[in-house]
Amino acid sequence: MIQTLTIQTRGQGLHEFTDAVRGCVRESRIETGLCTLFVRHTSASLTIQENADPSARYDLEQWIRRLVPEEDPHFTHTMEGPDDMPSHIKAALTATSLGIPVVASQLALGTWQGIYLWEHRVRPHSRQVVIHVGGD
Amino acid sequence: MIQTLTIQTRGQGLHEFTDAVRGCVRESRIETGLCTLFVRHTSASLTIQENADPSARYDLEQWIRRLVPEEDPHFTHTMEGPDDMPSHIKAALTATSLGIPVVASQLALGTWQGIYLWEHRVRPHSRQVVIHVGGD
Amino acid sequence: MIQTLTIQTRGQGLHEFTDAVRGCVRESRIETGLCTLFVRHTSASLTIQENADPSARYDLEQWIRRLVPEEDPHFTHTMEGPDDMPSHIKAALTATSLGIPVVASQLALGTWQGIYLWEHRVRPHSRQVVIHVGGD
Repeated sequence: MIQTLTIQTRGQGLHEFTDAVRGCVRESRIETGLCTLFVRHTSASLTIQENADPSARYDLEQWIRRLVPEEDPHFTHTMEGPDDMPSHIKAALTATSLGIPVVASQLALGTWQGIYLWEHRVRPHSRQVVIHVGGD
Repeated sequence: MIQTLTIQTRGQGLHEFTDAVRGCVRESRIETGLCTLFVRHTSASLTIQENADPSARYDLEQWIRRLVPEEDPHFTHTMEGPDDMPSHIKAALTATSLGIPVVASQLALGTWQGIYLWEHRVRPHSRQVVIHVGGD
Repeated sequence: MIQTLTIQTRGQGLHEFTDAVRGCVRESRIETGLCTLFVRHTSASLTIQENADPSARYDLEQWIRRLVPEEDPHFTHTMEGPDDMPSHIKAALTATSLGIPVVASQLALGTWQGIYLWEHRVRPHSRQVVIHVGGD
């Protein structure tokens, strides 16, 4: 089963959509198999992170902004704004696709794992994630 | 076929478990297909690295500790210890899942590729990796 | 269906092979499913990046060379040349495998997404990427 989710971001940072993926798995009625997520953009990515304390996501976002600052005089790809080139770099360093096994009709996530769309552009964007659920 | 491996780490660094994944593929009796690995934690990750010279793994571990040092005054998520926030960042920069094709009943690994659980916490942990092997 | 592509690189940087992957999907005659790519090396990796403006790939390559410079006095794994250890680190930070859903017999890539082999060694190499296409 394949479904495309549209996720509306509010700008840079992590946007959880674990429940929407769970919904896709439920609808597929697949008991054992594999759920694959794929983000259709080069300035946003996917990550699985701690879903308990929001301070972990805050620190992660601030850390990657320090690693890839907008004000890098080496950048030549600047036509689409100062946050565009950093967003491509952040996407290359994080995940474009994720594979999560399905066991007993459930995603095999650990207790503290949530699924996040990582928006790397400053302004809000509408992002597409394709979800494939394949059964054994 | 789905199986959950438990990997006992001895603290920070790379722990090879290629043979255990090979065992799962053998047990599955699948000749052509896909083997997917998924780590159920946000402070450990997966990587495929050179399995010949241990100095490559040593340098990799030391390098990522310099990239994400514990002593970062910006961190606010510090309740679970000074190695916790760096471990979430390292997990975001490396792989949570890996897909390896199965060809002629074997993982399609290159000659020098080994599969590693990357422990990012200082203390030893018991880590779960879910292995899915799907046939064509 | 499984196929192994051989990609001849011209040294460090991104080498596009989207069309070759599209060819594999076409040959598989699979309408709905999952295409998985796996690179069989520890000094090259995979990435999905903007396929429009080459300046984005240029900046990405230059940025990662600054992040992981050859002249790092901490490196002990130096027998295979000064570009070898940086190439293992760059491979660990980027993707060894990618999963791309197949919808209506086409890869579900976004408009600006191209598939690249990322060569991290200075000299040209012949690189193998295993492509698995599984149908529902």
